[in-house]
This record gives sequence, C-alpha cells and structure tokens, in this order.
Amino acid sequence: MASRALGVKTAGAAVSPWKPSSERARQREIKRDAVILAAARAFRLRGYHNTSVDDLAALLNVTKPTIYHYLDNKEEILFECFRTGLDQIKSAFDDIRDSKAPAIERLTAVMRKYAEAITSEFGWCMVRAEDQDLSPVMSKRINTLKSEIDQGIRRLIKDGIADGSIRRCDPKITAFALAGAMNWIAHWHRADAELTPDQIADRFIETFVNGLQPR
Amino acid sequence: MASRALGVKTAGAAVSPWKPSSERARQREIKRDAVILAAARAFRLRGYHNTSVDDLAALLNVTKPTIYHYLDNKEEILFECFRTGLDQIKSAFDDIRDSKAPAIERLTAVMRKYAEAITSEFGWCMVRAEDQDLSPVMSKRINTLKSEIDQGIRRLIKDGIADGSIRRCDPKITAFALAGAMNWIAHWHRADAELTPDQIADRFIETFVNGLQPR
Repeated sequence: MASRALGVKTAGAAVSPWKPSSERARQREIKRDAVILAAARAFRLRGYHNTSVDDLAALLNVTKPTIYHYLDNKEEILFECFRTGLDQIKSAFDDIRDSKAPAIERLTAVMRKYAEAITSEFGWCMVRAEDQDLSPVMSKRINTLKSEIDQGIRRLIKDGIADGSIRRCDPKITAFALAGAMNWIAHWHRADAELTPDQIADRFIETFVNGLQPR
Repeated sequence: MASRALGVKTAGAAVSPWKPSSERARQREIKRDAVILAAARAFRLRGYHNTSVDDLAALLNVTKPTIYHYLDNKEEILFECFRTGLDQIKSAFDDIRDSKAPAIERLTAVMRKYAEAITSEFGWCMVRAEDQDLSPVMSKRINTLKSEIDQGIRRLIKDGIADGSIRRCDPKITAFALAGAMNWIAHWHRADAELTPDQIADRFIETFVNGLQPR
C-alpha cells in the first residue's frame, strides 16, 4: 500500500514541469559544488590569475551568467574552494569531539584527515590562495577560518600535555610546525605520486610522534 | 716608510675622479644588494604584483634606469631576493662540510640557519614567490635552487640513519616535513614577534628531534 501511494505521488509530481523545491535545492547545491570543484582544479593547474570566470564557464559548458547564478565573483569562488577544503579538516575535529582516547591519538586522527584534505583537489586553494593578492576583506575571512583549525590543534596539544600523552612543549609553535609541514604538502604533492595520502600521513605521524632520534 | 708610501699612493688615487676598479666593483655590489634588500622588503609588505620597479626606484631615491643598471627586470630582482635567502641556507651546508659530528647534530645546525633565513627580510620571497605566476623559465630556475637544499637535507637524514643518530625513516618524506614546517614560518612570523629566530629554531628542533610523545 505504502509503495503504491508513493508510486501515485511520484507519477503526479512527474506531470508538473517543476521539480519539488527540496529537489530543486539539491540540484542547485550539486551544480554549485561542480563549479567549485572545477574552479579548484583550474586554479591549481593554471593559477588563480590565469583563470577567468569565462574559462570556468567553458569548462562546464555553460555561460558566465550561469556561473554567477551560483557564486557572486571569482574571489567568492576561490573562498568557497578554500572553505570546502577546510571543512574536511574541521570534520576531523567533529569526529573526535566525544572521543576519550589520549589526546595524541586524537591529534593523529586530525593529521590523517588534514593530509587527505591537503592532497585533495582543494589543497592548492587552501594553502596557496592567500598569496594571490586578495582583497583585505577576503584575506580576513580566510584568516578567520584558518585560525579555527590552528586553535583546534593547539587545544589538542594542550590536552595531550595535560593527559601525559604529549611531551611538555610550546603548544603554539608546535602547532605551527605541525600545520606548516602538512600545509607544505600542497607544494610538492602530485596526484600521480607514488604514495597515497594515507601513506604520507603515516610517515608524517611517525616523524612527529616519535621524533628523529632513535628511542 | 710603508705607511708613508701608502699615504702617497692614497693621495695620488684621490686626485683621479675615477675610483680603482676593485672599489668600483665593490660599490656596484653594495648598490645591487641595496636594490635587492629594498625589493625583498617591498614585496613582503605590498605583494609582488603590487610593487613596480618605479616603486623600488622611489624607495631608493633613484630613477628606474638606475635600477635596470643593476638588475634586468622585476622577475630578475625577485629571483635575486630568492637566491640571497637560499644562499644563507646553503652556507649552513658549507659550515658542516668537514664536521665529524653525528648527522643529527649537523641537521639541527642546518635547521638553525634555515630558521634564520626564513625569518629574515628574504623569507617571504623564498617561500611565497613561487605562487606569483612567474614565467616557466623563472619557476624552473627557482626549483633548481630549491632542489639543492632538499637534496642536502635528504643526504643528512640518510647519513643519520647510517650513523645511528636518526631513526630509520623515509628520507624524502621526512625532508619534506622538515622543510615544510620551516618554510611555513614565513607565513606566520612577524618581525615584532615575541620569539627570536633562534628560539623558534630551538622549539622546532625539540619537536623534530624528540617527537611529541614523552620519552
């Protein structure tokens, strides 16, 4: 009965040339995401200043006004590329929110997701976008997002010092060392690299957790 | 007698409106270095694309042709900023060339000079210049210089694994982690920071040598 009722409803909806608003919202989001992904790729391959909104439109087989239907301008597109990458790292903090594991384990879980985000299509935008002569307003928005990640890492290091899983150290400078090493991956990583993001994360975690000196 | 002879010679030289060629070469080098330092400062403060050769000339109270007397074009000036910074790191490798100390000590000596170079006026150019849409020729020249440093760090890590002062690890990825953390200093370091370059180096060395996990 339920499936029959659903069938009728679907058939009824199909008669209307307009999709239900939930479906329209979903379609809009899919298209917006496609613009952002295409832009992230193009910025990485050609550089931000060498890529126009016309180029992006051509890559997606649409007109420039179609792009502007989803995102206001090129800087806004870059910002969304940046945010998409950072959201992946932020989700790592969400994943460990309720964890009772020692802080060093929670920190390495974040490092693993961080490596994944930086080696993704969005890595270039996340790391190298800030050097593209952005407007002061945009620089500030980017710095606010970055600061959240930075503060999250510092907090984990402090938690680790408190629970004894991390050696006493300067949380701020240690967080800079960690994030710097991870961010720099975007300068050398290639999609066709011999190591997977997870293998890179393994080696980074080993270096940072165990140190260079034999134990 | 000797000082008298020197006195005569000096007095004689002062009569000529031309300085001896050795002195002219030295003056030329001093002026060229002044252009490079002023450029490094201006690029860091205003951005590379926002700084013209006219701006540099104005900063030094000279005309644009005077600048071009010392360096061919703006990209060449940027390259020299880059090279000046990298030369500081390369000198660290020269310093340890004949050292018989364990490789980990030689590596930390290099890290200390690396931190000094990155926190200098040339740090911005060394690290962030490559994202300025440079010509392919220039990118290649920069990559060649960077590769020398990278290979030097890898070699020290390999030496350390061989002499037992460094834990067995992937020298390439470990070198990337080290250099990445150091390079990233250029993104967060400010001249008025509370820590000196040496104090930053101390904390970085502690993190990398001892690791986060208590021993």
